[in-house]
Amino acid sequence: MIKTLGYAAQNPSAPLAPYSFQRREVGADDVQIDILYCGVCHSDLHTARNEWKNTLYPSVPGHEIVGKVVAVGANVKNFKVGDAAGVGCMVDSCQSCPSCGEGLEQYCESGFTGTYNGPVFGGENTFGGYSDNIVVNQKFVLRISHSDNLAAVAPLLCAGITTYSPLRQWNVQPGQKVGVVGLGGLGHMAVKIAAAMGAYVVLFTTSPGKREDALRLGAAEVVVSKNADEMAAHANSFDFILNTVAAPHNLDAFLGLLKRDATMTLVGAPETPHPSPEVFSLIFKRRRLAGSLIGGIAETQEMLDFCAEHGIVSDIEMIAMQDINEAYERMLKSDVKYRFVIDMATLKSASAA
Amino acid sequence: MIKTLGYAAQNPSAPLAPYSFQRREVGADDVQIDILYCGVCHSDLHTARNEWKNTLYPSVPGHEIVGKVVAVGANVKNFKVGDAAGVGCMVDSCQSCPSCGEGLEQYCESGFTGTYNGPVFGGENTFGGYSDNIVVNQKFVLRISHSDNLAAVAPLLCAGITTYSPLRQWNVQPGQKVGVVGLGGLGHMAVKIAAAMGAYVVLFTTSPGKREDALRLGAAEVVVSKNADEMAAHANSFDFILNTVAAPHNLDAFLGLLKRDATMTLVGAPETPHPSPEVFSLIFKRRRLAGSLIGGIAETQEMLDFCAEHGIVSDIEMIAMQDINEAYERMLKSDVKYRFVIDMATLKSASAA
Repeated sequence: MIKTLGYAAQNPSAPLAPYSFQRREVGADDVQIDILYCGVCHSDLHTARNEWKNTLYPSVPGHEIVGKVVAVGANVKNFKVGDAAGVGCMVDSCQSCPSCGEGLEQYCESGFTGTYNGPVFGGENTFGGYSDNIVVNQKFVLRISHSDNLAAVAPLLCAGITTYSPLRQWNVQPGQKVGVVGLGGLGHMAVKIAAAMGAYVVLFTTSPGKREDALRLGAAEVVVSKNADEMAAHANSFDFILNTVAAPHNLDAFLGLLKRDATMTLVGAPETPHPSPEVFSLIFKRRRLAGSLIGGIAETQEMLDFCAEHGIVSDIEMIAMQDINEAYERMLKSDVKYRFVIDMATLKSASAA
Repeated sequence: MIKTLGYAAQNPSAPLAPYSFQRREVGADDVQIDILYCGVCHSDLHTARNEWKNTLYPSVPGHEIVGKVVAVGANVKNFKVGDAAGVGCMVDSCQSCPSCGEGLEQYCESGFTGTYNGPVFGGENTFGGYSDNIVVNQKFVLRISHSDNLAAVAPLLCAGITTYSPLRQWNVQPGQKVGVVGLGGLGHMAVKIAAAMGAYVVLFTTSPGKREDALRLGAAEVVVSKNADEMAAHANSFDFILNTVAAPHNLDAFLGLLKRDATMTLVGAPETPHPSPEVFSLIFKRRRLAGSLIGGIAETQEMLDFCAEHGIVSDIEMIAMQDINEAYERMLKSDVKYRFVIDMATLKSASAA
């Protein structure tokens, strides 16, 4: 077994603190990664605090992992010691159901195994990337082709793929008008990626102060969604809207901006439901409301390669491991531009402190 | 001008009563139809009683019209005196917007002109099929290829196309598992049409008493939606669900029955919103919730031809014109199998009474 040092929550109200545990030995199909950086996703906080009522403790969050390969099993061909590698939200799936067969492991009929808090449908707990190493089946390890700035690559493993996948699934094309609702960790990635796909990106925000940042990130226009006149000017005009906001809000205000037959896809999951959308918003233009969950492994690789090609990384604020609890509080106030990333080199000193 | 006798509501609380008005003279592109039968749609009641807050009075409802051509304009080639003909929910549209260009007049960017209460976006009121004749531009007149039972054809013009169009739009194929929620005017048409398309049709109802009727109409299975065990047995298994229920209800119970990437389409519009669907219902299988509004003219013709070919008509209860107010009360109690149709031959005596 491999001795591992991490940061864990022991119960819903405890702050995260040092925690030692063991990873499995490197099997024939496994890749062992020393973790360099781990992004901080809102799901980490939801899980650490049991806000989705399914947390297994101790809980070691973290599923935006970038590191260096330090060992590989006998069957591993695509990774060698010294390679940069990434791990996202999944570390296993059944590999035999139709969804897995189509490379859509995130919709595995048996339920994929999450990188942390994994076996929601049974089995042993899994421990995520707030730790110094991880051992993962090669099928769930991603190649990193970015040549530098690996810390800012880490958030692509969740925030990047969560926005890239629906933009691809709903077939966003150059010149199309694409809305992105919300400019947080997910939203800022959606703006960058949709713009790189050639879309005319309109960013919707409740905060007029985010206008300049959104334009810098690649938006062609910014609409303050509280301003009814600004909103009305865009009625029936969008080919696709990616809604990244997890806080409950009025979906009709955005559904009404879609063209006929166009879709708004939700990637944020509110703790309490959105106000119910008006059926007329859907009926009168045959509009569609959908959801999307991260992305498959092959598509995650495609996204990483796309981002490397287009020079896309996340805008990050680096933190030390011992600052994670404070970072959670700041995340709750949206006080981050736009993703915290933990420098895992700080873990040892954090644990000694 | 053409003298016309009809039945109208004069205000939201008045019962419908005889009303005389005039139709325009038959223009070069017009078809004049003596109305034989008119189906009774729930929208008729909503409009007569101003439940959608947009009724123009006097209100002559009726948009499931079948009759005989009695005059045609000089430019009319596809209809001649003596032909059976139908008129559905629309009598005009801009004919120049992209939606009209694609034969989707129901989504006309300027708003189509309804057969009754037409000019929601301005213009003169229109009077529907609770009357002895109608004059309609040939583009909005449908050919009837059923050879008999014309009374039972009438409801195809709204209930038929409202269910046929989404079944086609979401590409229902032979062997697919298709759910139909609700067995009323729309639902019973959906069962017949989806079965004729070769789908394996599962009818969802809250009324166990409807089981045998649903099977007779073409359902392969009937599920009582209040029974959680029956519902659970169908989780993640449907290719498409057509939800015809206008009363507010829990959409998640049905969304959870969809396969990955499958759609539930709503064609009923509740007066108060449905309980808000859970975002997780959409996210975890990339499911889609959509709406659909009637169908275009070309597709309505296709539907009528499809129904004639497959021997499909509506199950109806014929009423006399003077029974319309009682029929509305029975409709509110779902006491009709499955569509009232007015025998317009009764109109003269009803008006003399």
